[in-house]
Amino acid sequence: MAVRGKIILGLDPGFADTGFGIISVKEHKLKFITAGSIRTSKDIVFSKRLQSIYLYIDKLIKKYKPDIVAVEKLYFARNVKTALDVGQARGVALLAIERNNKDLLEFTPSQIKQAVAASGNANKQQVGQMVKMILHLKEVPKSDDAADALATAITASFFNKKLV
Amino acid sequence: MAVRGKIILGLDPGFADTGFGIISVKEHKLKFITAGSIRTSKDIVFSKRLQSIYLYIDKLIKKYKPDIVAVEKLYFARNVKTALDVGQARGVALLAIERNNKDLLEFTPSQIKQAVAASGNANKQQVGQMVKMILHLKEVPKSDDAADALATAITASFFNKKLV
Repeated sequence: MAVRGKIILGLDPGFADTGFGIISVKEHKLKFITAGSIRTSKDIVFSKRLQSIYLYIDKLIKKYKPDIVAVEKLYFARNVKTALDVGQARGVALLAIERNNKDLLEFTPSQIKQAVAASGNANKQQVGQMVKMILHLKEVPKSDDAADALATAITASFFNKKLV
Repeated sequence: MAVRGKIILGLDPGFADTGFGIISVKEHKLKFITAGSIRTSKDIVFSKRLQSIYLYIDKLIKKYKPDIVAVEKLYFARNVKTALDVGQARGVALLAIERNNKDLLEFTPSQIKQAVAASGNANKQQVGQMVKMILHLKEVPKSDDAADALATAITASFFNKKLV
């Protein structure tokens, strides 16, 4: 196994905010590397917002060279308008992963909640608390999207036995 | 004005089928150049299907060098699942346009129907017939997606006075 361990990038694509979280896995130990949220302004033309998301993820992948990228699988959204917007952001996120030839894992929201908080119905606070505990963070990630992205990366580390 | 006239690429993004239609506009005359449908197989991994759509549109833009790209604006879909899928395809289509620095025009379905068939409630057959007539085609485009993409390009030529 490489000295650095395996790197996992988790993504929670959204239109206004796309969460990202990067962890490393080595000998069953998970380590926080970085996390945050890609925000795009309403004042920017729609297609340029999509481009920002794409370029940011592309940069993250090139910088941190993840072994695996994990993304939330979406089956539902508040309404059709939201689904169209989230879909567009998710489309460019998946494209960035594919263009960089990265392996993609997808998990449903309930798989992620089950994996990190032992309940498919866990709420955002519970997920945040568990992410904090599992990764030994000083505090719960401020952004829900970043917490969700970290939770997605953690889930990938649990599911993919090759990684640990 | 350039000898070749202005080139307009119309797109009708969908997940299984993305329609495209290219026309030229010169001295108020519209001319059909090409049209078709980008089909992606169900047997291919989701993110690779998105990549095929992206790469195909990228190739079309590089080959035909459109002055403008016009895409249908979406506000609704049959259901949330469809909206998520169409959204993802639309996201990579808009990204291909943006990455090639092309001007993007968006029209609602009713604007397109109004422009080509003089009624916001025109059905697919009427739109196909009008596309055939306006572009002097021998027959109605076989693919509805290609017909819709051509209708979108025609709409752009009507709306953008600089083009004619």
